[in-house]
Amino acid sequence: MIPDKPDRRSFLKNTAALAGLAVGASAASPVAEAAPPPERVDDLHAYGERSHLVNSVRIGSINNPERRIEGEPHDLGLRSPLQDQVGMITPASLHFVISHGYEPVDIAPQEHQLLIHGLVDRPLIFTLEELKRLPSVSRFHFIECHGNSSPGGPGSANRNAPKGTAQDTHGLTSCSQWTGVPLSLLLKEAGVQKGASWIIAEGADPSKHSKSIPLAKALDDALVAYGQNGEPVRPEQGFPLRLVVPGWQGINNVKWLRRIDVVDEPYMSMMEVSRYPSLKLDGKSRWFEFQLGPKSVITRPSGGYRLPGPGFYEISGLAWSGGGAVRRVEVSADGGRTWKDAEIEGPAYKKAHTRFTAPWTWTGDEVVLQSRCTDDTGEVQPTIAEVAKLWNADLDFFKNATIVVGDFNAIQPWKVNRDGSVQNALF
Amino acid sequence: MIPDKPDRRSFLKNTAALAGLAVGASAASPVAEAAPPPERVDDLHAYGERSHLVNSVRIGSINNPERRIEGEPHDLGLRSPLQDQVGMITPASLHFVISHGYEPVDIAPQEHQLLIHGLVDRPLIFTLEELKRLPSVSRFHFIECHGNSSPGGPGSANRNAPKGTAQDTHGLTSCSQWTGVPLSLLLKEAGVQKGASWIIAEGADPSKHSKSIPLAKALDDALVAYGQNGEPVRPEQGFPLRLVVPGWQGINNVKWLRRIDVVDEPYMSMMEVSRYPSLKLDGKSRWFEFQLGPKSVITRPSGGYRLPGPGFYEISGLAWSGGGAVRRVEVSADGGRTWKDAEIEGPAYKKAHTRFTAPWTWTGDEVVLQSRCTDDTGEVQPTIAEVAKLWNADLDFFKNATIVVGDFNAIQPWKVNRDGSVQNALF
Repeated sequence: MIPDKPDRRSFLKNTAALAGLAVGASAASPVAEAAPPPERVDDLHAYGERSHLVNSVRIGSINNPERRIEGEPHDLGLRSPLQDQVGMITPASLHFVISHGYEPVDIAPQEHQLLIHGLVDRPLIFTLEELKRLPSVSRFHFIECHGNSSPGGPGSANRNAPKGTAQDTHGLTSCSQWTGVPLSLLLKEAGVQKGASWIIAEGADPSKHSKSIPLAKALDDALVAYGQNGEPVRPEQGFPLRLVVPGWQGINNVKWLRRIDVVDEPYMSMMEVSRYPSLKLDGKSRWFEFQLGPKSVITRPSGGYRLPGPGFYEISGLAWSGGGAVRRVEVSADGGRTWKDAEIEGPAYKKAHTRFTAPWTWTGDEVVLQSRCTDDTGEVQPTIAEVAKLWNADLDFFKNATIVVGDFNAIQPWKVNRDGSVQNALF
Repeated sequence: MIPDKPDRRSFLKNTAALAGLAVGASAASPVAEAAPPPERVDDLHAYGERSHLVNSVRIGSINNPERRIEGEPHDLGLRSPLQDQVGMITPASLHFVISHGYEPVDIAPQEHQLLIHGLVDRPLIFTLEELKRLPSVSRFHFIECHGNSSPGGPGSANRNAPKGTAQDTHGLTSCSQWTGVPLSLLLKEAGVQKGASWIIAEGADPSKHSKSIPLAKALDDALVAYGQNGEPVRPEQGFPLRLVVPGWQGINNVKWLRRIDVVDEPYMSMMEVSRYPSLKLDGKSRWFEFQLGPKSVITRPSGGYRLPGPGFYEISGLAWSGGGAVRRVEVSADGGRTWKDAEIEGPAYKKAHTRFTAPWTWTGDEVVLQSRCTDDTGEVQPTIAEVAKLWNADLDFFKNATIVVGDFNAIQPWKVNRDGSVQNALF
């Protein structure tokens, strides 16, 4: 017999324990970190390493030259090597990184606190250990920069070039199993007041990166995460706490999370008004775009591969959508004339990378490989011509774009040449 | 519309490509590893590291003193720190390790080959790159040593001690997303002959670790894995190839896999007859036990934790079964008198770790916490008294056991003392 699930929230409401735990109890009485640090057997085996013969790495720009100021903190933009990855988990060491104006912050977890305040009945302060005492969930979610796969903008040097790899074109997305406390639980415990409609999430980095997020999303599926793929969130991802806002532009997933302010309007924080609005062709910009559309990319074979000769190959790639789970992926090996359903490694999680595979026999002729994602809302990944129509632009605009084309989710074509080399064929 | 899935196998049968790929084509024509190695941005960011403030490590015995011979290769027995982990993925760096008589083997992947021969129509040799061209699957599976949680035997020093942690008691199990080629596909391509009933899987380690596995299991869900959690299988787990035999004793999951011999009887290989039979109380031993039963352990709080005071705590742990998916986990906070259904993080995968959670309020009294797993075959994790009955032994036998009690899956009790300290209470 499958039992009824316990109702976490009503359980909490039936005790006075949680409120007592959160307010003021604070850092004086942490739950001890399990056993005292064990004696290390040796450094090699205590925390294992990958083979020295595996050299897949993140690449990108440490310094964004046009913005770099000598002696000031600088941007990090590191792309994940999708072309080397298998399955649907991104190894934490290879998770993409975008950080504006700062290096990862070095925070002592026992000193870190999360403040929830603003339009609430009971402002709350949580230490990390207090958060770990609360009801938790573990969920697979991708995080993707809104500029991922954009044909223009800073840091996209090889995006349109024939030599572009899947890392160059789509490397600003990654997927992890995130573990933490639903933000809705914390907000309900704090008691959101009438009139509240947004939250402002703030990080502990030097720039105090902040992001306005509609309250409805915060109460839906946002997560205050302390775990990533089974271990603590990595420093570059916000150790010890990151806000995970599933399916929404990466900028919302505030790292080194220290404060949630419940408010009645968006706060026009620096990044959301200075760099993240989508500049449109009419000179206006669109603010507060959030949800990422359905997208997919074939990762094997992809740009930079070289097929040794005609014969059987598996086509393998990743698909994802901010709109929900991946329902369908189709693959074309004839430049888009015909499409065939790929196999989805299931169950496909909501707002998570999903691995797809399809069998293919290469005849030795020049062919173009493409994949197309449909999410469970029925939304279909568009062609670049369809995206151009939405932008009221022609293809040359995208080809020569100098601005980030936000939320660009056009189908990615890879051309297989007669010599077996595979190249980026977006243009 | 959700499409019909393509039939991988019939696709393969309709082409002659696969056979042409496998036999003799071999190492002369590998698929290039994606792009040429990119220039590293810097060592810190190219392949990220965990926070220097996180110190969770594997512990165990590098040398098994009673078997160590000066100058000879030695045993590795490293337990995974379950008490620190969240979610259901074991970070690859913290995956448990058991290796008998050898250090991880350093294999150049471009030189590694897998031979499939014996009672087959077409012996096959695959390079790693050839395997990566074949239809692949990515699946979550645990691997567990048959001696995990055994109250006796070498390397279990703190297993029965009050100070034993979840790492000491249950640290020889881990869960990864494994990516590779179904062994059934390779065996069908080779053409298994009539009369074949077993396979012998052999590793490339100095001892040529070999394991006899019934053909039916090999054709069911065994996997020739080259990927672990999105990246290449780690050296300690068999880089570049590991046989994954879901739900069966760890010893079957042959590392550094280089040979599959299709045969008509088990081959009585060294490890399976010298150390891995279960010695029973009547002096006889039982050979060829395979499937691991339903098991669970509360990981937080667990031995070594100290609760700061009465109040709300989430109970969190892991459950798994070789028999299939976890259907139900119950938790008791009163020494087993009453049980309450825990919440299962779903969907629960077959033969995979499954995270469970349950809310709990500690009153400050001495209590015993326990969890009990039921798998989807309906099998229920037993009490230690029930296990003793199966063994026709009394509890003192387990308490003082000097042999490995194989496949020991009794319920694990943790005692919370009035001072908040938590200790192992198996005895």
